[in-house]
Amino acid sequence: MSTISKRTFIASGLAAAAAAGPLDALARQTDRKLGYAILGLGYYATRIIMPRFAECEHSKLVALVSGTPEKLKTFGEQYGIPESHRYSYETFDKIVDNPDVDIVYVVTPNSLHRTFTERAAKAGKHVMCEKPMATSSADCEAMIAACKKAGRKLMIGYRSRFQAHNIEAIKLIRDGAIGPVRHISTDHGFTIGDPTQWRLKKALSGGGSLMDIGIYSLNAARYLTGEEPVAVNAIESTDRSNPRFKEVEDIINFQLLFPSGATAQCGSAYTANFNRYRVSGPKGFIELDPATSYQGQAMRTALGGPPAPREPAPQPKNQFSAQLDHLSECILTNREPIVGGEEGLKDVRVIEAIYRAAREGRTVRL
Amino acid sequence: MSTISKRTFIASGLAAAAAAGPLDALARQTDRKLGYAILGLGYYATRIIMPRFAECEHSKLVALVSGTPEKLKTFGEQYGIPESHRYSYETFDKIVDNPDVDIVYVVTPNSLHRTFTERAAKAGKHVMCEKPMATSSADCEAMIAACKKAGRKLMIGYRSRFQAHNIEAIKLIRDGAIGPVRHISTDHGFTIGDPTQWRLKKALSGGGSLMDIGIYSLNAARYLTGEEPVAVNAIESTDRSNPRFKEVEDIINFQLLFPSGATAQCGSAYTANFNRYRVSGPKGFIELDPATSYQGQAMRTALGGPPAPREPAPQPKNQFSAQLDHLSECILTNREPIVGGEEGLKDVRVIEAIYRAAREGRTVRL
Repeated sequence: MSTISKRTFIASGLAAAAAAGPLDALARQTDRKLGYAILGLGYYATRIIMPRFAECEHSKLVALVSGTPEKLKTFGEQYGIPESHRYSYETFDKIVDNPDVDIVYVVTPNSLHRTFTERAAKAGKHVMCEKPMATSSADCEAMIAACKKAGRKLMIGYRSRFQAHNIEAIKLIRDGAIGPVRHISTDHGFTIGDPTQWRLKKALSGGGSLMDIGIYSLNAARYLTGEEPVAVNAIESTDRSNPRFKEVEDIINFQLLFPSGATAQCGSAYTANFNRYRVSGPKGFIELDPATSYQGQAMRTALGGPPAPREPAPQPKNQFSAQLDHLSECILTNREPIVGGEEGLKDVRVIEAIYRAAREGRTVRL
Repeated sequence: MSTISKRTFIASGLAAAAAAGPLDALARQTDRKLGYAILGLGYYATRIIMPRFAECEHSKLVALVSGTPEKLKTFGEQYGIPESHRYSYETFDKIVDNPDVDIVYVVTPNSLHRTFTERAAKAGKHVMCEKPMATSSADCEAMIAACKKAGRKLMIGYRSRFQAHNIEAIKLIRDGAIGPVRHISTDHGFTIGDPTQWRLKKALSGGGSLMDIGIYSLNAARYLTGEEPVAVNAIESTDRSNPRFKEVEDIINFQLLFPSGATAQCGSAYTANFNRYRVSGPKGFIELDPATSYQGQAMRTALGGPPAPREPAPQPKNQFSAQLDHLSECILTNREPIVGGEEGLKDVRVIEAIYRAAREGRTVRL
């Protein structure tokens, strides 16, 4: 039985029970671990993601794809990936013949997300793709179409949706703890260093702080309200004489208006360090600072009383392992990821509107 | 020797020493206390301001002006103000004949600031006026002209400029502790109650949350950067079906761009409770929360290390007494207040630009 056939069998076998419980409960009925190929062996892939397979229930690292032979060797040996499961970008398409690989996780510079997603789908693999999903909404749409045509799932790496403090914040809001959301203040940024890095090359990144870190402010505003913005303003502030910012923006702050009347003030910067949000309504506020970092999240709430620290309900897994397992569980149970291609597309559409609003000096309606 | 002559004598006597030290040191050379008339006996005047004369060095409460006879009686008796020093709005102009009164502090609804400032100046009195200075820049200009014509000083009640945490924040920024200011996030708002109050009547208030509480976000962005904004965006969110918001706005969030490239994200709301700012640069941040409240300010800084609470250098007086004494000291030493009529005008001009930006859906250049 091929991998795909096995998966189909498991998925159909679980289908009857699908309504009974959460995905992980269903998936737990099998001990099968789906195989991931990591494509793009940079810092985030090798230091942050790859070590977290150890805590996964339904995901394992089985293959590596990189343009740098030394990286393939180093990380291949470190993670016990045989040479047969190491690919260059030239040999990547041969992954179609590797039944151990179920999912390709694309962790390249942004402008390469589309082509590798398309090639992975064409090779019959499901795709996890880092955010921003792509550097244009047209690319996002092509990626969605490619995965749909191949009958494969597509998920975007919005890890904060699997992080305990963020899950708690969303739950509190949905439970009405602060009343209707009226105001979100959220800022994401860091002081960027080396001017030669790919993040500062527009052809690779598609843009500056907004594509890289400001997207967290945008995505948080969307998942905290559970709404899509209808109007966007933006102001950019970039010192183009600075070698780091010859091609991409430094600061681009934006404002959002949501259909319910909720509003968001969103910061995005490459010359300031912050990672925070506060969600306010007539009955109180919920604050995370840091909010979407790799670790160390802290929550403070004011719910009818003075502000006080709050510990969220614990989650069974860290955000990285939970994200990896979510796609595996969706595949095993034939469900759609909570952050699929459409979610990535929605962010990129707003990003395009933010750039347009700043450029044209006007409110862009969505 | 009349009060004014005495004052002139003292001021000229101190003029030679003027460069030698701060105003209060100069003023301290006399034990004279200038006499304040409080005009408008609402909550802020009677509960917040009037009790703080007790801690003043150069200011004393000597007269009351109100449209409500019961208030004149109650507070007159409480503060030992004789009937000869109690005025109605009809008899107010007779204050010209009262040599005990040096300063009139206008604490009425916003749209009345202009007329009472003009009448006070015409009666030969200096003027302290609450913020917003007026409901239009034209009114502000008329108030400045009236005081100039009368040869009297005009100060706007920006008490935060005399508050220890805010003074420390400004000093840290000017000393370069966070590097150049790149980003300010500031939100001011409260959940407004009684729909019949004057704040919700446009003819009296001139506007909603922005005129009342959002002005703190604006003023903070200006004093923290020490710059004047050159571009403004805004988005309004008001439920006009709510009885409280038939005439004035609820939320109006705005964005500012300053000449140096500093940016500010400013919140203003009548359906959320917040009072905070964070100022960020490449080297760190300074946060006050609450920032501009009557009391209880708290500071947190991250200056090359992890965020930590910080106690500001103590100030000799609370913000209210210091504000009252500042105008007295300026009069005694013939200096201009650090927050004179021009400061109030600058805020109101930006407020007009904020409303225009929201109404027209475009970036307004200043």
